[in-house]
Amino acid sequence: MPISPEQQAEIDELRANPKPTLRAVSDGMEAHLYKAYEVLDHGFIRVIDYMGDDAAICQAARVSYGKGTKSVSNDSGLIRYLMRHWHSTPFEMCELKMHIKLPVFVARQWIRHRTANVNEYSARYSILDREFYIPQPEDLAAQSVVNNQGRGEALTGEEAARVLRYLKDDAAQCYDHYEEMISQDGQQGLARELARMNLPANIYTQWYWKVDLHNLFHFLRLRADKHAQYEIRVYADAICKVVADWVPAAYGAFEDYRLGGAVLSQKGVECLKRMLAGEAVTQETSGMSKGEWREFEGVVG
Amino acid sequence: MPISPEQQAEIDELRANPKPTLRAVSDGMEAHLYKAYEVLDHGFIRVIDYMGDDAAICQAARVSYGKGTKSVSNDSGLIRYLMRHWHSTPFEMCELKMHIKLPVFVARQWIRHRTANVNEYSARYSILDREFYIPQPEDLAAQSVVNNQGRGEALTGEEAARVLRYLKDDAAQCYDHYEEMISQDGQQGLARELARMNLPANIYTQWYWKVDLHNLFHFLRLRADKHAQYEIRVYADAICKVVADWVPAAYGAFEDYRLGGAVLSQKGVECLKRMLAGEAVTQETSGMSKGEWREFEGVVG
Amino acid sequence: MPISPEQQAEIDELRANPKPTLRAVSDGMEAHLYKAYEVLDHGFIRVIDYMGDDAAICQAARVSYGKGTKSVSNDSGLIRYLMRHWHSTPFEMCELKMHIKLPVFVARQWIRHRTANVNEYSARYSILDREFYIPQPEDLAAQSVVNNQGRGEALTGEEAARVLRYLKDDAAQCYDHYEEMISQDGQQGLARELARMNLPANIYTQWYWKVDLHNLFHFLRLRADKHAQYEIRVYADAICKVVADWVPAAYGAFEDYRLGGAVLSQKGVECLKRMLAGEAVTQETSGMSKGEWREFEGVVG
Amino acid sequence: MPISPEQQAEIDELRANPKPTLRAVSDGMEAHLYKAYEVLDHGFIRVIDYMGDDAAICQAARVSYGKGTKSVSNDSGLIRYLMRHWHSTPFEMCELKMHIKLPVFVARQWIRHRTANVNEYSARYSILDREFYIPQPEDLAAQSVVNNQGRGEALTGEEAARVLRYLKDDAAQCYDHYEEMISQDGQQGLARELARMNLPANIYTQWYWKVDLHNLFHFLRLRADKHAQYEIRVYADAICKVVADWVPAAYGAFEDYRLGGAVLSQKGVECLKRMLAGEAVTQETSGMSKGEWREFEGVVG
Repeated sequence: MPISPEQQAEIDELRANPKPTLRAVSDGMEAHLYKAYEVLDHGFIRVIDYMGDDAAICQAARVSYGKGTKSVSNDSGLIRYLMRHWHSTPFEMCELKMHIKLPVFVARQWIRHRTANVNEYSARYSILDREFYIPQPEDLAAQSVVNNQGRGEALTGEEAARVLRYLKDDAAQCYDHYEEMISQDGQQGLARELARMNLPANIYTQWYWKVDLHNLFHFLRLRADKHAQYEIRVYADAICKVVADWVPAAYGAFEDYRLGGAVLSQKGVECLKRMLAGEAVTQETSGMSKGEWREFEGVVG
Repeated sequence: MPISPEQQAEIDELRANPKPTLRAVSDGMEAHLYKAYEVLDHGFIRVIDYMGDDAAICQAARVSYGKGTKSVSNDSGLIRYLMRHWHSTPFEMCELKMHIKLPVFVARQWIRHRTANVNEYSARYSILDREFYIPQPEDLAAQSVVNNQGRGEALTGEEAARVLRYLKDDAAQCYDHYEEMISQDGQQGLARELARMNLPANIYTQWYWKVDLHNLFHFLRLRADKHAQYEIRVYADAICKVVADWVPAAYGAFEDYRLGGAVLSQKGVECLKRMLAGEAVTQETSGMSKGEWREFEGVVG
Repeated sequence: MPISPEQQAEIDELRANPKPTLRAVSDGMEAHLYKAYEVLDHGFIRVIDYMGDDAAICQAARVSYGKGTKSVSNDSGLIRYLMRHWHSTPFEMCELKMHIKLPVFVARQWIRHRTANVNEYSARYSILDREFYIPQPEDLAAQSVVNNQGRGEALTGEEAARVLRYLKDDAAQCYDHYEEMISQDGQQGLARELARMNLPANIYTQWYWKVDLHNLFHFLRLRADKHAQYEIRVYADAICKVVADWVPAAYGAFEDYRLGGAVLSQKGVECLKRMLAGEAVTQETSGMSKGEWREFEGVVG
Repeated sequence: MPISPEQQAEIDELRANPKPTLRAVSDGMEAHLYKAYEVLDHGFIRVIDYMGDDAAICQAARVSYGKGTKSVSNDSGLIRYLMRHWHSTPFEMCELKMHIKLPVFVARQWIRHRTANVNEYSARYSILDREFYIPQPEDLAAQSVVNNQGRGEALTGEEAARVLRYLKDDAAQCYDHYEEMISQDGQQGLARELARMNLPANIYTQWYWKVDLHNLFHFLRLRADKHAQYEIRVYADAICKVVADWVPAAYGAFEDYRLGGAVLSQKGVECLKRMLAGEAVTQETSGMSKGEWREFEGVVG
């Protein structure tokens, strides 16, 4: 259970007290504020605060005195233009702050996105909870045989059972010893900053993460992608949903130009022109390596 | 006049329409939203949006589910602790967006602070207004004779008059020619992106500038400092005032530990201990260069 | 003349003294070190230092103890893979430091690339030289009639002559007054930090600029693009040439995947598939706006 | 043993082949290149590449055509001035690239320094080695009773023995199961990206880490500090030694103004002046909290 009744009460209290503001308000996002959306077995994402909306992107692009907006359709066209032409700075004018609970091995991938602000729960200062990510059976994937950093089919039978047993038992034992090493009864008690090193990478941590919309889109493009590891992709997918309600025009442009689009190389463009002219291009005649050709076919095939 | 009646009407309209929000609200900052505070002869700063307040700093530092605050005095103590120990990430959890109008030579200094988001009025796309910074007589300072990058006394008499005449006349003439080169009547009209290069550095530009509180404090420490050029310092001073109303506890800690504090070198600490022990230390016996000693005396003298 | 004989002598002296190093050496880049390549009428780029080469990209990607390289063809394939899959961090392992002289209005665009290190010549501290960018007649472009931030044909006749006269005369007069305001004979002398504001944006400044290869490629993609302003594009083009000699494999991949490639939207990909299936798609049936369709045709047409 | 004979052979080969370069060379740093300096039980730091030296800092500060240096004493004075006045950009003109092997829990602290470039060994792609940090008995510290995020005395007797047993046995068992889950004999084999989550935080990882000198000094100030966790401090200390040989003047200024210096608050400065005037100030009369006063006494006491 990711949220305890006490925590839920705190969340409910925050949601019960609207206050007047003169700032730009996104009604779509207000509906999400503070709520915990479950991800994996103990994780969640929660929106803590946001700055700006679709109109704020246009207002900044126009450096205007007032709302800077003309009409919804006009704004949407401007936003699509900005996205298409890589004008990233107006999107940086929106900001999102979230509270996220996630396994440590996911956090280690996540933190590589450097243009963001982070406050993580400190295991030097505090004691971590006994919560570990244990995959669902269908997510217990075998190593891919074609991609060194990918997954294949789900494990089955005794092998699956053994893996689950190892993950559960090792986590439980490591945590028992963690607790014992730091507990104070009749002993000195190991420093927390040392004891934590006995904990495996599927333990949950949590942090406040704040990022501007441009860098968030960059994160989502890489992490909501099918090549991303499943355990971070589900977080990216959950964030996509709230962003779609927050800035619908910007999210729509992002979906069209980034998530759903494709990048072609110069060689790819040339092949495409030959194909449109009626030629039957093959990998051999394309000038591409096998890997490039496979990816090219994935786009136009 | 930095704000036209039409612009003021847009501002008034934005201030007339409070909406409910569930986000953290800073009443002190709401009072400033959208208002233009004049700086120099044609410039201003205006707060367009903000995220967070003093409590949000503590909430992030505690990675909490609810408000994360205990009491005002408790929060203030935590904020002072964070500031004293260079824990910068909780301050990054607050964000400020402003609309700023400023001379180009000031903008060129300002932009060197890289950890911020900027949308500037485009002189490739649009035509700049005929507005130039002309210093007040008392700000028409002579070159410092002791500091290569500082100012001395104000110019006087005929010299002051001549300087003012040059600044005004050259700006007017350059702008006349700028306008003439781009105007379309009976001619092709020079591209705006080229014509702008005839404009001197005291012309005004404007931008949306967004920055987190940690990086804003860094900006203010350097630019509200007495070594900063006067023309950027007045902007920093104006921003200090709104920040003090936005996050009073954080601003108080900033004033005490950064603006009003002092950094001592190891040599400085050693001299201080000798002085506290009763020794009469001089530059010669201090081990410091003359410049260092002068600055050291500025702190403890 | 961008380089004085004294400056050339300093450059020659630096080039006359090779020293042994154990670091990775790029012979292609050694040939460029310190030399000034002229850009525009008074500008230049000069490589001052570099870190890494093609092999260093692979070495970092493999986190290896030794050279980390297997064979040139193997390395080249890995580099292409990294580029294609947006693995940006290995490219960040190479670094370039340049000395650049450029007009202020170009510097203002350039500095918007924030992930770089810059030391600019200080006009608070020093006196700027009397050097202004005056376009060649063929670069004296009219405002584009189809693109608000673009150029059309070159100006001709009396209009061209008048523009050149304005640019030259205003620059000369502004500089005369700048010099007079700061000169010390029988007067107090205006502070340099104030006097500089009389100088137009075509005056030359200079800086040391240091950037990693990933961010440099991002800069080059945007600034060597045909939509970039001509006066910054010529700098990007000059940099492309030295980068091609420094890291030939990485530059080749950059040319194929970034400079020469194309980004398609989801709508674009769908249209493409319909076209490859034999359908005659038009703007009306494409679902794209006119602007998007025009750009789409630019890719596949 | 952190370095295998094969790895040492690769290092020796790199050190055996000096090549001529026209770039700035730091003899002090050439002596360190590629060598592995041991840290903790299996870790190390190795310098892979560097850019610049003390003279390059001055050259950039002066934006010069040649070496930009006048004399060693003159350069040293300039470097001290730049450090004292927080002119950070000239220090950014030097760059360091290292190969570092370190426990995961140390890597998690380290990565919080965002202004750096990192390529980490991928546990999605490759299999981690069986190497875990097991503290020396004297580093097996108890939790501090005065500081929630600090350490007290070393554990003793049976408690120390039990902690060591837990750390060793849990690591061994987790790794056995990790290996078993991914091994391919007669089973599907769990994906590496999943299996790694069974590994505790004291397992070693390694990365290439590249950073400019300004940001490196910031890292060293925080991590070579006595409040930093011992296990990261030993890495910072090892890096300090090579930096001292690389840029001796800059490192000397860093030691004097940052490592060995002190920051006083406004209240602290006021107390100091009262003390210098002969007053016996106490915590009660200082206006400081107990914590602040204790730290103030630590500086001047």
